[in-house]
Amino acid sequence: MAKPHTQACPIAGFLNLFGDAWTLLIVREAFYGATRFSEFQRNTGIARNLLTDRLASLVEHGLFERQNIGEHGTRYAYRLTDKGRSLVPVFVAMVQWSNDHVYGEDNAPVHLIERVSQKPLHPMRPKSWSGKTLAWGDILAAPGPGATPDATARIAEAVKAADDISWTS
Amino acid sequence: MAKPHTQACPIAGFLNLFGDAWTLLIVREAFYGATRFSEFQRNTGIARNLLTDRLASLVEHGLFERQNIGEHGTRYAYRLTDKGRSLVPVFVAMVQWSNDHVYGEDNAPVHLIERVSQKPLHPMRPKSWSGKTLAWGDILAAPGPGATPDATARIAEAVKAADDISWTS
Repeated sequence: MAKPHTQACPIAGFLNLFGDAWTLLIVREAFYGATRFSEFQRNTGIARNLLTDRLASLVEHGLFERQNIGEHGTRYAYRLTDKGRSLVPVFVAMVQWSNDHVYGEDNAPVHLIERVSQKPLHPMRPKSWSGKTLAWGDILAAPGPGATPDATARIAEAVKAADDISWTS
Repeated sequence: MAKPHTQACPIAGFLNLFGDAWTLLIVREAFYGATRFSEFQRNTGIARNLLTDRLASLVEHGLFERQNIGEHGTRYAYRLTDKGRSLVPVFVAMVQWSNDHVYGEDNAPVHLIERVSQKPLHPMRPKSWSGKTLAWGDILAAPGPGATPDATARIAEAVKAADDISWTS
């Protein structure tokens, strides 16, 4: 894996866990019900040494739990933890964007539908606390309690730069 | 860059564009108002040769547009296209997940707030068309118009496997 990003930034923090070409495919398989090393391997096409490394990292970071399900000897199953399952909004946002902008609606390989109604999900959009749909121009970054002085200065600069852009979508 | 994924899958399609440790940080900077090579370079810490490669790829895939803003000679500005700006839901979902699960609320480096009210955004969650919040167990993958026969078989298998899991969140 590449050297981790050290910036105090939620996107950098996300990329330190998922910023490689494979980890999110492994998590995808877990959402689809895969639990065994061989299933992850077959369904993603990842090399075995990379899969070993990525599964260990997912366990270490609390996204997967590893259980010994062997009746005679050792056989492991990997399952999403609550933390892993909490990635659902990120996945749904990626699938919807990719269907709309990589494949196009007429060529979407997979649709996500509501199990009960069998209807497509609503497109996920950022909303204000009162329920208004927001474009990026309606959204500001603000320093949180964990912002470093450098990050606070960068955010102030970014907010000023964004003010100079006219956002139309 | 690694070899692109060839699976007909929206997550694979997303990772072919963003499955490296840098591209999303460059897009982040564009959302924060950066337009110049030097700004992207300084604010992300990426090596110059990698930045050249990633900016060319972002332009090639229609996420950034490159404009010559030089009055005497050539100076380029890079700006998000509509396609690039449509990544906002993906970004917001990542920032919210990372604040909740990587940093924790008490240590969040950045909050996203509504510009007008200065209040935090609503947590983004998948919803049914009728507005019900959905957990992964409420969601099914279904083959879309662009599904290959292999993908269709894989989805049927995944749906069956997911049926065997009791989803509690």
